[in-house]
Amino acid sequence: MRVVIIGAGAAGLKAACRIRRKDENAEIIVIEKEKEFSISRCSLPYYIAGLVKREELFKTAYGVLKDKKYFNSKNIEILQAFAEEINRAKKVVKVNRNGHTEKLDYDYLIIATGAKPVIPKVEGINSIGVYTLHSPHDADQIIKRLKESENVVIVGAGLIGIECCEAFFDYDVNIILVEMMNRVLPTLLDLEMSKFVERYLKLLGIKVLTNTKVDKIINKNDEVCGVKIGNKEIECQMVLFATGFKPNVELAAKSGLEIGKTGAIRVNEYLQTTDPHVYAGGDCVENKCLITNDLVYLPSGSIANKHGRVIADNITGLKRKFEGVLRSLVLKVFDLTVGAIGINEELAKKKGFNIISAIVPFSSDKSHVYPERNPIILKVIVEKNTKRILGVQVVGTGRGDKKLDSLAVAIQSNAKISELMNLDFAYAPPYSPAVDHVNTISYVIDNKLNNLIYTIKPDEFKRKIESNDDFLIIDVRTYAEARIEKIEDKRCIHIPLEKFRESIPKLLKIPKEKEIILVCSSGYRSYEALRILISLGFVNVKSLEGGLLLFKSFQ
Amino acid sequence: MRVVIIGAGAAGLKAACRIRRKDENAEIIVIEKEKEFSISRCSLPYYIAGLVKREELFKTAYGVLKDKKYFNSKNIEILQAFAEEINRAKKVVKVNRNGHTEKLDYDYLIIATGAKPVIPKVEGINSIGVYTLHSPHDADQIIKRLKESENVVIVGAGLIGIECCEAFFDYDVNIILVEMMNRVLPTLLDLEMSKFVERYLKLLGIKVLTNTKVDKIINKNDEVCGVKIGNKEIECQMVLFATGFKPNVELAAKSGLEIGKTGAIRVNEYLQTTDPHVYAGGDCVENKCLITNDLVYLPSGSIANKHGRVIADNITGLKRKFEGVLRSLVLKVFDLTVGAIGINEELAKKKGFNIISAIVPFSSDKSHVYPERNPIILKVIVEKNTKRILGVQVVGTGRGDKKLDSLAVAIQSNAKISELMNLDFAYAPPYSPAVDHVNTISYVIDNKLNNLIYTIKPDEFKRKIESNDDFLIIDVRTYAEARIEKIEDKRCIHIPLEKFRESIPKLLKIPKEKEIILVCSSGYRSYEALRILISLGFVNVKSLEGGLLLFKSFQ
Repeated sequence: MRVVIIGAGAAGLKAACRIRRKDENAEIIVIEKEKEFSISRCSLPYYIAGLVKREELFKTAYGVLKDKKYFNSKNIEILQAFAEEINRAKKVVKVNRNGHTEKLDYDYLIIATGAKPVIPKVEGINSIGVYTLHSPHDADQIIKRLKESENVVIVGAGLIGIECCEAFFDYDVNIILVEMMNRVLPTLLDLEMSKFVERYLKLLGIKVLTNTKVDKIINKNDEVCGVKIGNKEIECQMVLFATGFKPNVELAAKSGLEIGKTGAIRVNEYLQTTDPHVYAGGDCVENKCLITNDLVYLPSGSIANKHGRVIADNITGLKRKFEGVLRSLVLKVFDLTVGAIGINEELAKKKGFNIISAIVPFSSDKSHVYPERNPIILKVIVEKNTKRILGVQVVGTGRGDKKLDSLAVAIQSNAKISELMNLDFAYAPPYSPAVDHVNTISYVIDNKLNNLIYTIKPDEFKRKIESNDDFLIIDVRTYAEARIEKIEDKRCIHIPLEKFRESIPKLLKIPKEKEIILVCSSGYRSYEALRILISLGFVNVKSLEGGLLLFKSFQ
Repeated sequence: MRVVIIGAGAAGLKAACRIRRKDENAEIIVIEKEKEFSISRCSLPYYIAGLVKREELFKTAYGVLKDKKYFNSKNIEILQAFAEEINRAKKVVKVNRNGHTEKLDYDYLIIATGAKPVIPKVEGINSIGVYTLHSPHDADQIIKRLKESENVVIVGAGLIGIECCEAFFDYDVNIILVEMMNRVLPTLLDLEMSKFVERYLKLLGIKVLTNTKVDKIINKNDEVCGVKIGNKEIECQMVLFATGFKPNVELAAKSGLEIGKTGAIRVNEYLQTTDPHVYAGGDCVENKCLITNDLVYLPSGSIANKHGRVIADNITGLKRKFEGVLRSLVLKVFDLTVGAIGINEELAKKKGFNIISAIVPFSSDKSHVYPERNPIILKVIVEKNTKRILGVQVVGTGRGDKKLDSLAVAIQSNAKISELMNLDFAYAPPYSPAVDHVNTISYVIDNKLNNLIYTIKPDEFKRKIESNDDFLIIDVRTYAEARIEKIEDKRCIHIPLEKFRESIPKLLKIPKEKEIILVCSSGYRSYEALRILISLGFVNVKSLEGGLLLFKSFQ
């Protein structure tokens, strides 16, 4: 059996190695056009930041270089050549090797051609000092340029754009982050969560321009010297386009394999293309989203690895499915951990889901008595009728990635949110609160479903505050909290939760239909106060969701 | 409606607060005999260690003291009294308050009487300087005594015993940890995992005595001055008995409520005792283990909180079940994170489960190129026919608690191990490897189920090495690794994996039925070498499970 693999990235090489482990006699040839391959691309920002050495980008976990020799020792041939054409009828790949054409027969072909950065059509895009980030070579050039730059424009506030804010930071450059959408990480986070990240970036001195498009790259002697945004010019010596990736599908398309609506190669659940002898995996294929059942394009090193294993198993006789993806993503933004699983509220609504959501800021990722605690803000989106979790978002300096993992399993397992209420997470003070964040947020959803709480979101609250509406804000924090961070609004009164019941006679003087918004730091005490007001017969009471901790980002 | 609650701990107070939020008019009385209540008991070791201030043991997350006044502000009465008797026919609790007897009617009664430390019958147990750890007062005494002690004996290497090794460490005392069973954390961990913790404790200079029983406390003028173990005496100035807890059930038993075989109060899934007007929760009740369906006694602050909420909902009209527990536990052992979910291999076998297990040491909890990475060793136990996960164990300086959480959800959701193979965890280099540890360990189980790998456990390997058996060890690590940490055995040869295929002619000289044990650092490369040997026709080849990383603890 001969297996030909096009592309020596995560999917291709994983498939190659697993095929080898299962079949010592298979002939395995990997066609790769680049001199540098088997790269940990996700680590490129950390290489730029100086945290990862260049050679480590190419090493195994036990320190061996994954070069041609390494793969040869596995009896896997790395053929440095360019795959020009696939003749599926004859099962032959035509390759160009140093200008010479060769033909390679195959029994099975694996297309793992990966992706390339999207380069928008902007005037001046070819100026020196304008980059995308996809290879160690790109990173080398960026590092060199960073050392000579004062102002750097990053276009696109997605994963790579935001990771590069951190990667570039210690080069002592001014960073201007430009995003077309109304918020950073727009596909990942809803507005309230995104605003928290934006505020954080701004506190670090990064200029964040949302709803903004770069219209032109200005250059001088072919070197970038600025960008034009509307009629404004921003001086800069470097521009990074972090505007997404698109799949390398030219070869597959030319050979008549189906390309999906996403622009990536269509594969079935066995990762076969429309030709059963041709498999495809990694950043060149589309995936099924397990939440919406849509086909989506989500390049990811983690998924590529999984594809590789599934393909290898299917070729070597274990019939295996790749069910789909959860759109999982996490990133480090300086000290913040930011991530999401599933779909956000915006997309859920667009897709017509009838949803209920909850946002809970936790002052600590550990027990609240344990030192070195850090806050995390958690959001879940639940489908009302099925009670299944559609999405999760997390931001904060605390260990939010842990929450993503457990909720990823919950989503994959189709767990109802109610099944998480009593879930017995392993507890000790250095690791979590006695009642885990995931338990708590499922309680909040439960309370909402049982009409025990009514909330107002921070962006709505901001609109109300800015309006001249007649309503009342009751701040229920402690005296100390209320003094340190006063709510400056004439419609605001302060009654600490601990004094709330004593104040009932005073509260009863307020008309029952008066709109009242209860406010505390996280939304927990305002909920408790809300319960009291409801019991007194008030009919238009809301608790500020996410408390002042989340609202701060809107101020 | 009047609800009387006996015990102001996690279960009782959680129930009280939630009942209040749902019913402003309920009369809620909590009977508590101790002056100090609503204690974060799990934090006591950290209080001893000086990490947590005394008053913090009693505070809310937003810094307010949870004293009588605090609960009064919620219209919850804390009655400092001793509950002497329950008359269920009349729905009355008789309490003793400062020597006076009072009677309290109830509509619903909640028994949340908690637990007390087990004090074994040992001669001299009442000597001054002998403690258990259950209250801040205990901790105060221990702190005082630690300052005057040179040698401290901790009896019991369970959760509290091990946590106290760390808590006592900075007092500059010699710690002798004594455990009756053959290993530390015996109910939590299987031998291989336990040995890793034991080795770690020993490296820190803690004396660990397993298979050992304290026969007598020796004292002088009523003060402890040593312990007698067999015919040996160990000098010490303090002894801590960390020999488990037992439920406070005297009151419930006396009133005719059913006590289970575990010795704790029997409750149904609504947390009702055998009297439907009497609920019970927290450390005084037994729980259903969701893995074995056995009734078990597992006191835990985390579970107590959940009980409280379920009871409150049932009393206030939302019918709610508490399904059961996963026996989840995690603890910090200095820099190690140690934990387990479900049942261990030993118990699984005792229960008659037909199991398959895997142990995988990972050199990094993050991407292997990312700095500040720490190892974690993961073990899973899977039921062979159903493929469901029965148990998980983790040890290591890496962030193993994260693995416990995701696997807890998997167990609760009855996920088959195969469902975790492609599970789309959120990946970025600072948070996990591209292929998550949970994916990888499910791959290993999959490989075992498909007979792609045969393994030998470290304890078996040790017995073989110590025997005169005729077998061959092949070390497949790199030259550097093999020199730094040489395997000293005449039956061992060294062929780095990268040279394995070149060495086939040499390997073919070995008889095919020869027993061969392949060894590397973690078990990954030895698996790959095993695949080659199998393809060559060798029939008795095994890979050392957990590699030398795990075997080291047996040396």
